[in-house]
Amino acid sequence: MSGRLDEFGLIARYFRPLATAPGAAGLTDDAATIPHAFGKELVVTTDAVVAGVHFFPDDPADAVARKALRVNLSDLAAKGARPTGYLVTLALPDVWDEDWLEAFSEGLAIDQEEFGVSLLGGDTVRSPGGLVISITAFGHAAEGHVPRRDGAAPGQRLYVTGTIGDAALGLMLRQDERLGRLWDLSRAEKEALLDRYLLPEPRVALASVVGAYGTASMDVSDGLIGDVRKLAEASRVGAVIDAVRVPLSSGVARAARLDPPALGSALTGGDDYEILLAIDPEDAEAFEAEAISLGVRVADIGVLTEGSAVRVERHGREMIFQRGSWNHF
Amino acid sequence: MSGRLDEFGLIARYFRPLATAPGAAGLTDDAATIPHAFGKELVVTTDAVVAGVHFFPDDPADAVARKALRVNLSDLAAKGARPTGYLVTLALPDVWDEDWLEAFSEGLAIDQEEFGVSLLGGDTVRSPGGLVISITAFGHAAEGHVPRRDGAAPGQRLYVTGTIGDAALGLMLRQDERLGRLWDLSRAEKEALLDRYLLPEPRVALASVVGAYGTASMDVSDGLIGDVRKLAEASRVGAVIDAVRVPLSSGVARAARLDPPALGSALTGGDDYEILLAIDPEDAEAFEAEAISLGVRVADIGVLTEGSAVRVERHGREMIFQRGSWNHF
Repeated sequence: MSGRLDEFGLIARYFRPLATAPGAAGLTDDAATIPHAFGKELVVTTDAVVAGVHFFPDDPADAVARKALRVNLSDLAAKGARPTGYLVTLALPDVWDEDWLEAFSEGLAIDQEEFGVSLLGGDTVRSPGGLVISITAFGHAAEGHVPRRDGAAPGQRLYVTGTIGDAALGLMLRQDERLGRLWDLSRAEKEALLDRYLLPEPRVALASVVGAYGTASMDVSDGLIGDVRKLAEASRVGAVIDAVRVPLSSGVARAARLDPPALGSALTGGDDYEILLAIDPEDAEAFEAEAISLGVRVADIGVLTEGSAVRVERHGREMIFQRGSWNHF
Repeated sequence: MSGRLDEFGLIARYFRPLATAPGAAGLTDDAATIPHAFGKELVVTTDAVVAGVHFFPDDPADAVARKALRVNLSDLAAKGARPTGYLVTLALPDVWDEDWLEAFSEGLAIDQEEFGVSLLGGDTVRSPGGLVISITAFGHAAEGHVPRRDGAAPGQRLYVTGTIGDAALGLMLRQDERLGRLWDLSRAEKEALLDRYLLPEPRVALASVVGAYGTASMDVSDGLIGDVRKLAEASRVGAVIDAVRVPLSSGVARAARLDPPALGSALTGGDDYEILLAIDPEDAEAFEAEAISLGVRVADIGVLTEGSAVRVERHGREMIFQRGSWNHF
C-alpha cells in the first residue's frame, strides 16, 4: 500500500507530539523513564504480541506467555534496567479454554522465578477478533545509566550479545521444514533454532553492565542490520559492520555456508532479542571482561563513523540487503 | 456457558498466585503501587477497551481515545493518585486509515491538556481481528494514602461522586432511541446521557481528597450495586444502601419515575466512572466540604455494617436486582 505510513511514520506523526514528558524521549526509544528514589530510575516499556502475527495460534500457551513477557524484559535489559514487575492485559477470543489459561499462567510463573519479577496487575477483556497479549514491564536502573538509542559517537565500537539469526532461521524452518536438509542441520541444531524463535533469551543478567558501559543501546528485535540503522540514525552517526564478526550459532553458520541468502535472512530477520550497544574503545576491555564473568557472550561487530551511511562488509566487499529490517507491524 | 469461570474466577485461579509483590495487592484491586521517592507512591493501572465490546466501532476516534485514557485516570483517582503519564498499545486491524488515527491522537491531546499527563510510550501492532486499545497509566499518591478496596469498617459511610446511571441509560438510548420518548427526556437530557456513555468524567480533581479521607475506595465501572458488593466483600463488611439517596441526573430521575425498571438499570449498569468510597463518620463533614470546594458533588448513600449482606432499600423496602453488576468481559 504505497503512500501509507508505516509504524514509525505513524508514531512520529500522530503520537510524538503527545510525548511531552522528558522521560518519554519523544517516543524515539524502547522504554520511558520515571524519576525514582535513591539514585534510581524507574524504566517502563510495553510490547504486545498478537496471535497470527507474533506467534503461531497453536504455539504452546506457556511459551506464548513467556515470549510476551521476555520481549519486554529484553527492552528493559537494553536500557540497563533490572526487571521488577509487570502488568498483563489479555484480550481473549470468545472461545478460550481453561487449559490454555492454566498453561499460560504456568509459563509466567516459570519466568517470574527465573527473572525475579512479580505480576502487578492487568486487565482481561473479550476480543471478538483474536488473542492479543499486551504487557507493560517495570525495571530499575541506576540514575543516569539508562542508555538511549541516541548516545553513540563516531569512533565507538558496536557490540552485540549472544548469536544473531537463530530465531529468523527458526521461523523459516518452521514455515518450510525442508530447509533443515538444505542447511544440513543436526537434530539438535534444528531444535535450537526452532526453540529460539519460540522463546527468546532476554539478556537480563547483563542489564547493569549495559547501563554502566553502553553509550547507546537497544535490543535487536527487528533484524540486526535494520536496528543498527535505527541506532545510527538516532545518534546521527554512520557505521561499518563486519559481517564476518557477527556471532552465529553453528546451525546458522552452516546454513549461511550452504545457502548464502540465509546469511541475509540471519542479519535482517527479527526476533533476536539480543542487545546492540555502543561502547567507548577505552571501555571495551572492561566491558568484555564483565560480560564474560556473567556468562554472556559479546562480540565487537564494527565501528561507528562520521556521516550517516551504514555499510555492511564481508571480506572487504559491501553486502546489499533487499530489506534491512523486519517490521512486525 | 455454565461451569465456566468468569473474569474474576479466572484472575483468582490463574493470575493471583503470580502477584507476589506487596504493591500488587493480590490482584484484588484496580491499581498497583510501586514505592517511590519523597513520601510518594507511584500508582499504576491498566485497562483495555475493545471495539464492539467497550465502544461502538463507529464511535468518533477522538472519543474512543479519550474514553480509553479516562477509564484509566478514573482508576488512579479512586486510588488517590494524580495522573502523570501513560503508555498506549494500539492493536490495529489490517484496514485502518489516517483520518481515524489523526482524530484518535487529537482526542488524546485534548485530554493530555485537560488532565496534565504525557504519553510515555507504547506499541502499535497489527491485529487481524479488530481494534484493541490498551492503556497503562501512572500517577502519584501520597505515601500511605492509596485507599484499597479492603479498608472499610462497619459504621463508616459510603459515598459516591457525581450522578449514577447516566452512561447505562445513555447506552440503552443508543440501542433503542424510542426510550427517549418513554422516559420523556428533553433534547438536552438525551444528549447528556448519550455523551456520558461516550465520554466518562474521571474524578481526577478529587484524587488527593479521596486519598486523604477514603478508608476504602474504587471507581464505579461495573454498576454501582455490584461495585458496592465488591468493596464490601473485599473489606469483609456488609452494607445498607438507601436507593433514594443515590444521586441521579434529571434525565435518569425522570426515566426512573416513568419506567421503574430504568432505576434498576441505572443502579446496576456500567460505565459510571464515579468514585465509591468509605469515609469515617468523623471525617464526613470535612470530606464533603473539601469535595464541594473542588466543585465535585458527593452523596452519602448508605452505611457499612457487620456481616456480609449488601441490602439496597427504597422507602424502607428491599430492592431486588436481577443482576447486580455488569461484566464487560
